[in-house]
Amino acid sequence: MDSRWTALQLDESVNTPLYLQLARKLAEAINAGWWQADEALPSERSLCDALAISRVTARKALDILLEQGLISRRHGSGTFITPKLEQPLSRLNGFSEVLKAKGFKPESQWLSRVRTTPTTEEIIKLGLSPNAEVCRLKRKRLADGVVMAIEISTLPASCLPDPLRVDSSLYAHLDSTGHSVVRALQHVRAINATPELAELAGIPVGEAMLMMSRIGFDAANNAIELTDTYCRNDYYDFVAELKR
Amino acid sequence: MDSRWTALQLDESVNTPLYLQLARKLAEAINAGWWQADEALPSERSLCDALAISRVTARKALDILLEQGLISRRHGSGTFITPKLEQPLSRLNGFSEVLKAKGFKPESQWLSRVRTTPTTEEIIKLGLSPNAEVCRLKRKRLADGVVMAIEISTLPASCLPDPLRVDSSLYAHLDSTGHSVVRALQHVRAINATPELAELAGIPVGEAMLMMSRIGFDAANNAIELTDTYCRNDYYDFVAELKR
Repeated sequence: MDSRWTALQLDESVNTPLYLQLARKLAEAINAGWWQADEALPSERSLCDALAISRVTARKALDILLEQGLISRRHGSGTFITPKLEQPLSRLNGFSEVLKAKGFKPESQWLSRVRTTPTTEEIIKLGLSPNAEVCRLKRKRLADGVVMAIEISTLPASCLPDPLRVDSSLYAHLDSTGHSVVRALQHVRAINATPELAELAGIPVGEAMLMMSRIGFDAANNAIELTDTYCRNDYYDFVAELKR
Repeated sequence: MDSRWTALQLDESVNTPLYLQLARKLAEAINAGWWQADEALPSERSLCDALAISRVTARKALDILLEQGLISRRHGSGTFITPKLEQPLSRLNGFSEVLKAKGFKPESQWLSRVRTTPTTEEIIKLGLSPNAEVCRLKRKRLADGVVMAIEISTLPASCLPDPLRVDSSLYAHLDSTGHSVVRALQHVRAINATPELAELAGIPVGEAMLMMSRIGFDAANNAIELTDTYCRNDYYDFVAELKR
C-alpha cells in the first residue's frame, strides 16, 4: 500500500470537496484491482494520517463507496471490497479465472448430471436427429461460499457420452476429449426468479435475475453446447465495451 | 419469395420429422432476415403446395416458431415475424438503424429535457466540479408505436448547454457540436420494474427488465454521457459473440 498513498493525495486548491476527491480516487483504485478480496482497505485512521484529512472526510468518502456497493464493512475487521464478478461480455468462460484473479475462491456444486432425451427446442438448436440423446448438467456456481449463479448445460451425447466424467470444468473436459467450444453466441435477458431458482440462489421469488443463454460452437462450426446461466444480479456485473 | 422455396425443400429420406425440418429452416430464414416486419410469411396453404407437405406438418412447424416467439399471428392477415430488436452488445447506438433495417418504424417521445444540478454519483462518474450543472434527457423509445425502452441520459452542461436543442438523435446533436461520443462502457443488469417504469413501459410492476448503464467517452477520453436504458424484456434481444 505505502507506495500508493501518493496516488491518493488530495488537492486542497481545487473546489471539489475532499471527501468527493477521495471517494473518486478510492473507487478508481478498487476498480483497478489494488485490493484483493481478502485484504482490508486502509482504515479510516490510516487514511486520516497518511492523507492529512479529518475523520469526517474519510468516513464520508467510505460511505459513498458503501452506498455504491463497492465495499462492505465486516464487524471488527475493517472494510473490504464487495465480491462482484465483473465479466466482459466478449470472453468465453471467464467465471473461475476472473474470480481467482480477484482473490475469490470459485467453486461448483453439481445439482444433477443426467443423460436424457432432448426437448424440441434442443433438437432444433443442436441440429439433432430426434432419437439422439443429450446430457444435461445442472450446477450452482459459488464464490467464497456464496451462490452467484445457477447453470444448466445441455450437450449432444455424441460429444459427451458420460456426464459423470465432467469434473469442475466442462470446457476443460471437452478440450480433453477433442470437442472444444471455440466460439459462442450469447443472448442476454432479464427474468423473474421462479420459486425453484429463488430457492437455489437464496433470493426472493420474483427477484430480477440476468439470464445468459449461450450456444457454443466447435471448430467445425457445429452447435455442441446450450448453456443457460441464471445470475444473481447483486453479484454479477457484465460489461461490454462499445465502439461506433 | 419464389426463388427461396428451394432452400426450404425438405428431405424425406432422413429420419428427422418433416415438421422439425421445416421449423428449423423457417427459423434460419427468419433470423437471416428473409421477411420484413410488415411482410406476411407464406401461408400454411402455400407452404403445403410449394413443399408438397400436409397441412398438419405446416401447422406444427409454425406452432413451434410461435412458441419460440419468432412469429405472431394477426387475425385475418396471416403470420408475421415478431418485433424483436436483436442488438449486438459491441456496437454503440444501434437502436434506430437496427429497427429500420428490419422494416420497423423507430420513434422517440421526450418525457423531459431539463438543466439541473447533478447527483453525487453523477459528479463522481462525470468528473464534475460540484457546482457544475448537467442536462438530463428522459424519453420513451418506440418501434411501430410500441414502447420498447425508457432512456435517461445525463450530460455535463458544458457539453450540452441547452437540452431542448436535441432533436431525435442525441448522438447526432453531439456530433454537430463537436462533442462526439466515440467509445462507451456498458454495464448490464436485471431490475424489477418500479411503478413509474411499469406505467411508462406498459408492463406489470415488478416485471424483470434489462437495465443498460452506459458511460460514453469523447475522443479525449473524458466521460461526457451517462445513459440508463430500461429495456422491455419481451422486445429486446441482446447478443454478444464470445471467443476464447
